[in-house]
Amino acid sequence: MTRCALCDKIDTSNEYRCSCGGPLQLDHFKGYIKKEGKIWSSHRDFFPYNLSKEDSLGEGNTPLIRAKRLSAKFGINLYLKNETVNPTWSFKDRGTILGIKRALELGYDKIGTVSTGNMAASVACYGAYHGLRTIVLVSSDIPEGKLGQISLYGPEIIAVDGDYGELYHQSLNIDDIYFINSDNPYRIEGYKSMAFEIASELDASHVIIPTSSGGLFRGIVKGYEELIQNDIIDHIPRFIAVQGEGCSPTHRAFSEGEPVKHWGCPNTIAKAISNPFPPSGDVVVKKLKELKGTSVAVKEDDILEAQKSIARDGIYCQPASAVGVAALPHLIKDMDRSSKVVSLVTGSGIKVKAPSVKVKTADINKLKEKM
Amino acid sequence: MTRCALCDKIDTSNEYRCSCGGPLQLDHFKGYIKKEGKIWSSHRDFFPYNLSKEDSLGEGNTPLIRAKRLSAKFGINLYLKNETVNPTWSFKDRGTILGIKRALELGYDKIGTVSTGNMAASVACYGAYHGLRTIVLVSSDIPEGKLGQISLYGPEIIAVDGDYGELYHQSLNIDDIYFINSDNPYRIEGYKSMAFEIASELDASHVIIPTSSGGLFRGIVKGYEELIQNDIIDHIPRFIAVQGEGCSPTHRAFSEGEPVKHWGCPNTIAKAISNPFPPSGDVVVKKLKELKGTSVAVKEDDILEAQKSIARDGIYCQPASAVGVAALPHLIKDMDRSSKVVSLVTGSGIKVKAPSVKVKTADINKLKEKM
Repeated sequence: MTRCALCDKIDTSNEYRCSCGGPLQLDHFKGYIKKEGKIWSSHRDFFPYNLSKEDSLGEGNTPLIRAKRLSAKFGINLYLKNETVNPTWSFKDRGTILGIKRALELGYDKIGTVSTGNMAASVACYGAYHGLRTIVLVSSDIPEGKLGQISLYGPEIIAVDGDYGELYHQSLNIDDIYFINSDNPYRIEGYKSMAFEIASELDASHVIIPTSSGGLFRGIVKGYEELIQNDIIDHIPRFIAVQGEGCSPTHRAFSEGEPVKHWGCPNTIAKAISNPFPPSGDVVVKKLKELKGTSVAVKEDDILEAQKSIARDGIYCQPASAVGVAALPHLIKDMDRSSKVVSLVTGSGIKVKAPSVKVKTADINKLKEKM
Repeated sequence: MTRCALCDKIDTSNEYRCSCGGPLQLDHFKGYIKKEGKIWSSHRDFFPYNLSKEDSLGEGNTPLIRAKRLSAKFGINLYLKNETVNPTWSFKDRGTILGIKRALELGYDKIGTVSTGNMAASVACYGAYHGLRTIVLVSSDIPEGKLGQISLYGPEIIAVDGDYGELYHQSLNIDDIYFINSDNPYRIEGYKSMAFEIASELDASHVIIPTSSGGLFRGIVKGYEELIQNDIIDHIPRFIAVQGEGCSPTHRAFSEGEPVKHWGCPNTIAKAISNPFPPSGDVVVKKLKELKGTSVAVKEDDILEAQKSIARDGIYCQPASAVGVAALPHLIKDMDRSSKVVSLVTGSGIKVKAPSVKVKTADINKLKEKM
């Protein structure tokens, strides 16, 4: 059963969005957890499809790393969920695979997405692997260099003139392509797997979520809700949605108690979370209020500093993935030494141009003295 | 017990290399496999150290993907071992973690490596995570852009003038730093984990190994030898060492029946396997002969073509990681429809500058017709 995540109306006539404008989502699942197997089989009852070994590229089952230095620095137990080791090096793969299964179930031979980053790479990769014609819609002003990874998977890349923010909505009207966009209902189902993995390892007190379209946030929350409803856990962590100050429409809406409005032109280094008009933004705000979560917008300099700290705790992530750690100083008053805080590290730093570096020079024969 | 991998002499006085010039290696392990747990615990008997959850960043246990299109194209069963999903996106992490354990056992507080690529990133990452001072020696003519990922982990990067090929040997004479170079004995032990994982999933007929220093090749072969010696498997696959034509000193030595000689200046797009004077090259040649393996050098154009094909089967890899697939046309006469061929995909393509791409442009209102 499909229901609007915003107005709660049951709607089975559409695939993606309710007539109220809200995003659709599948009803909560009921079931049991099996002790063995990877996430798609141990939590099979909670996913809409069975994934065979041939379906999967090995997405999910990522490490939950205890951040030694950052834990000591903040006096908490901080864990980093390392999503950079997925097949296309971001969390998107967990959602893409279920979107593909949906497209195949409905009989599509063409899939698409509106993205220039992690999601485009993921959809292009899985589309190729499953033998589907794949269309990636990008903005016509995209720099050529950004398309290298995506193009190697062999999709059709189409640059579109006009308001790129509108493209998401336009794409949903194209009948013969199944669009696996940022908050596609089946994508959300895939993201639940992260919540299931965290809960199977840790009784988290807080889960910090870099937030853009709102799809990831919704998936994590829905996953935890299903665990509670099925008596698998007995309390839910506090959820924190984080954005960069230079593009924080959902944070603004949460703070001001208003619906999410178009941000205008994003101006943040956290490019992977810079959707100026998040299609699930209002659902994020609704859920934050309902579950007593909170929202933070972080400064650009703090993002870069956090990226560095996370690397020293073992993960080289994108700036967008560092916003959770950058938000910690704002959140620490709500935490103590017993807090178990999970920050989602959503994508790899090597996808992004690295800073240039100056190095010391030494003569080979003087190397021993140099040390 | 440590023994020379080349002359077989027992040598416990040195850490890295025998007085004959050959690389040292630990004696073969004896033991049993446990059914449960990740690779470091299921195969605990076969590793020199116990790895706790706090030691590990989640390296290993990578997917073995059936390459659908390439299997059909070549009429074999081709599997890709996806090492691009390790914590620093290459297989190096499997060896680095055991090198770190060795350094800690010996009481070092400083570790080092001679590398500008995958290995430098891996050692810098694990050094930071384990709180060790980490020194990365690079050539003084390295482009600044190449050091971004490495530097964010916070190591000391020292550019060295002089013959970079010599640096490997010079580094081994620096007493107060433990060097985890390409064929460090404990690194080799870590690479065995790949063989163990493959064997636990598949009875491979052939294993194709991109080969540079020879460390990876040695690790895979030693892993299989230990499985045979402990009656865990009953036959060994055929091993194939592959290099790029522009730097193939080991292939030349194997073909000509001569010791490995310095290649001179490497000229190949397969940068991650362009060591011009491989420190374990002679051991690779010895093992290929002993086990009736073979060696191939592949053309530059074939490498790029193979990289593209591998992406369409779901993995965007470095050119160096594509040489195995590029070698298939040379190997196919030795294979048939029942062959189960594994090619090691050693590192991520997003570490390398991507090709630029031209895209089609469409008006947003004409999008539907465009499809």
